[in-house]
Amino acid sequence: MATETMKALRMYADWDPKPGFKLGAKDIEGRQTYLSSQVWRNPQLKLEDVAVPQPKDNEVVIQIRACGICGTDVHMYQTDDDGYMFYPGLTGFPATIGHELSGVVAAAGPKALNKGTNRPFSLGEKVCAEEMIWCGSCKPCADGYPNHCERLDEIGINVDGGFTKYVVVPDRVVWSLDPLSERYTEQEVFQLGALIEPTCVAYNAVIERGGGVHPGDNVVILGAGPVGLLAAAILKRNGAGTVVLSEPSEDRARLAPKMGVDHVINPMTESMPERVLQLTKGMGASLFLEATGLPTQVYPDIEQVIWEGRTLNSTVVVVARADAKIPVTGEVLQVRRARIVGAQGHSGHGTFPRAIESIAKGMDVRPVITKTVDLDGVQAMIEELQTDKTQCKVQCLMEA
Amino acid sequence: MATETMKALRMYADWDPKPGFKLGAKDIEGRQTYLSSQVWRNPQLKLEDVAVPQPKDNEVVIQIRACGICGTDVHMYQTDDDGYMFYPGLTGFPATIGHELSGVVAAAGPKALNKGTNRPFSLGEKVCAEEMIWCGSCKPCADGYPNHCERLDEIGINVDGGFTKYVVVPDRVVWSLDPLSERYTEQEVFQLGALIEPTCVAYNAVIERGGGVHPGDNVVILGAGPVGLLAAAILKRNGAGTVVLSEPSEDRARLAPKMGVDHVINPMTESMPERVLQLTKGMGASLFLEATGLPTQVYPDIEQVIWEGRTLNSTVVVVARADAKIPVTGEVLQVRRARIVGAQGHSGHGTFPRAIESIAKGMDVRPVITKTVDLDGVQAMIEELQTDKTQCKVQCLMEA
Repeated sequence: MATETMKALRMYADWDPKPGFKLGAKDIEGRQTYLSSQVWRNPQLKLEDVAVPQPKDNEVVIQIRACGICGTDVHMYQTDDDGYMFYPGLTGFPATIGHELSGVVAAAGPKALNKGTNRPFSLGEKVCAEEMIWCGSCKPCADGYPNHCERLDEIGINVDGGFTKYVVVPDRVVWSLDPLSERYTEQEVFQLGALIEPTCVAYNAVIERGGGVHPGDNVVILGAGPVGLLAAAILKRNGAGTVVLSEPSEDRARLAPKMGVDHVINPMTESMPERVLQLTKGMGASLFLEATGLPTQVYPDIEQVIWEGRTLNSTVVVVARADAKIPVTGEVLQVRRARIVGAQGHSGHGTFPRAIESIAKGMDVRPVITKTVDLDGVQAMIEELQTDKTQCKVQCLMEA
Repeated sequence: MATETMKALRMYADWDPKPGFKLGAKDIEGRQTYLSSQVWRNPQLKLEDVAVPQPKDNEVVIQIRACGICGTDVHMYQTDDDGYMFYPGLTGFPATIGHELSGVVAAAGPKALNKGTNRPFSLGEKVCAEEMIWCGSCKPCADGYPNHCERLDEIGINVDGGFTKYVVVPDRVVWSLDPLSERYTEQEVFQLGALIEPTCVAYNAVIERGGGVHPGDNVVILGAGPVGLLAAAILKRNGAGTVVLSEPSEDRARLAPKMGVDHVINPMTESMPERVLQLTKGMGASLFLEATGLPTQVYPDIEQVIWEGRTLNSTVVVVARADAKIPVTGEVLQVRRARIVGAQGHSGHGTFPRAIESIAKGMDVRPVITKTVDLDGVQAMIEELQTDKTQCKVQCLMEA
């Protein structure tokens, strides 16, 4: 592959820090920042030819077969009136974007090992990858919390990602998709493989951080984005009794019945708390997932269900990012024995292999895929998704 | 004892509901309410002669030897400008007040059994009692959450309590103080026995609800009332590394070094977050106890320690009641893998026997006792404590 080139969808932007911005400890002048919306201006996408990557030591080159478009991709390309990037987090440019990826092992370094077998990968093995390249060496990683790695790289964000033919990643973030092949066709395996990463964001939120449910518990999901819908499927799989989704958009909610949701509530036209209490015969819910990013709007309703419902020990999982404070009534937490937890990331805690195994055994998350495009169509789709809220998950499919 | 009488400090008040008040499901016209500050006016205390109680079936009569004055006692007697009671929770009058009690078993009904032995109590056995008479039959009780009993009575609050010679209570809330006798004198056993109830409020908050600490973890206690100081002793016993107390009052903070506190911070004259980060070498803390009731003042500081400190997985336990909302930044919970839990009560979860055993094995909580009075002096002390903030725990001692 040494002299080959490939087409890659790469993001460029102008390094133009706002007044008062100072380089942070992990920022690199002109190349990388942890505060993208303070620094990057005029993001551009270019479909251009780049060299096919070669694997070193413990690296794996994956030939991409599917790569999903994430809200992050949309927000990196979207700008405010001054041309500054919407996306506030870590980025480094130029970089090939795309991080919800699956494909086959095309090459592997001499030290690369498959975590599932502790043996070398087989060429052609179907795999997916985590988006977070946690270092494995910093204190949080050593303590078992890779989602909080202090030396993080992110695929398709500050290192080259998946909207191209080949991507190179360290072996430690690669997971075999073999378990999926028993139940699904090859094409389905790749499309499901590209859904593993967002599925693991939802899994980390409701299972690892939220503690999941005891079978028979009720849950309420706020917001029908991919993470909210994937969380519904995971909690139904975990034995949830009644799964209620609160979502004002009919377009977003239409997939809910196929994702394990029993009842959809439109909080703009009916009282979410009253409806939840009615649907659950006054019990309320054990787990609430805040996946809207609008805590001032949804948290008072969550509190009302906890206060008036008869379920003790409710957990509120906060997975959506928001600038606004959450207006929390301590007495509700006290009298109802409740708690609030924050969730971030998808790595560690056995999450990837468990999500893959759940899908392999029949947790079908394909309904969230509402459209597919080819590599030439990704940029237009990313632009379209800034305003088109009818899609749930759009994937780019690549030929073998 | 049948014809005997005894002196009892009893509270009376006028049933005079504010406009708009409606009797709740568990309220009793003229006798009991769950919203005391909406109903009761002109609370009065009278030291009067009442009949000595007799035990029925599974009841135990305890001859009181010590009974602590709680903030609840003070707030039941304190009124606003219109004469309405400060205390907002459940009360029923008239009732003998006092609920932090210890003494000896003076009589027991034919079915009364000691939970520690499943055998009848011995007459003269030293015991203490929970304040909450959880029913043991409602759904929360049956599910193992007696602190959230739906048919609750409270000793010294809506049923007769301990500022007298004898109190009658159901066997299920009585705990033997025998383990204390190996280490402490008889008088100490009674004084410590009367501290078990507030110790268990702190224990329930930081251990049962907060999850305690791994030995070596740092903790920050906000507020040096009895619960804050008792929590410090419990967490130090649980292996806490650095225990920091934030308390503006020097009077309240002066007991801290004897209760396991390593460093006291005055948040009015220094930055609590900066000082905690300095004292913990940038680590911050694993557990925060909000025991001030002033969440708008202390929560932003707690967040700053969590955000800037390197400790992941911090737990904030909210034990103090407050009307104000807690201004919670979801991103802090997400990025730092943190959580907030509410704590209420002291019953269940093995808390009483564990607190007793901890004290028996050397967790000395006597320093919180700053004064003792006799029964004749309780009313004046309750009045004095409305304004005198130099005392920590005042106990009424009774002759054998």
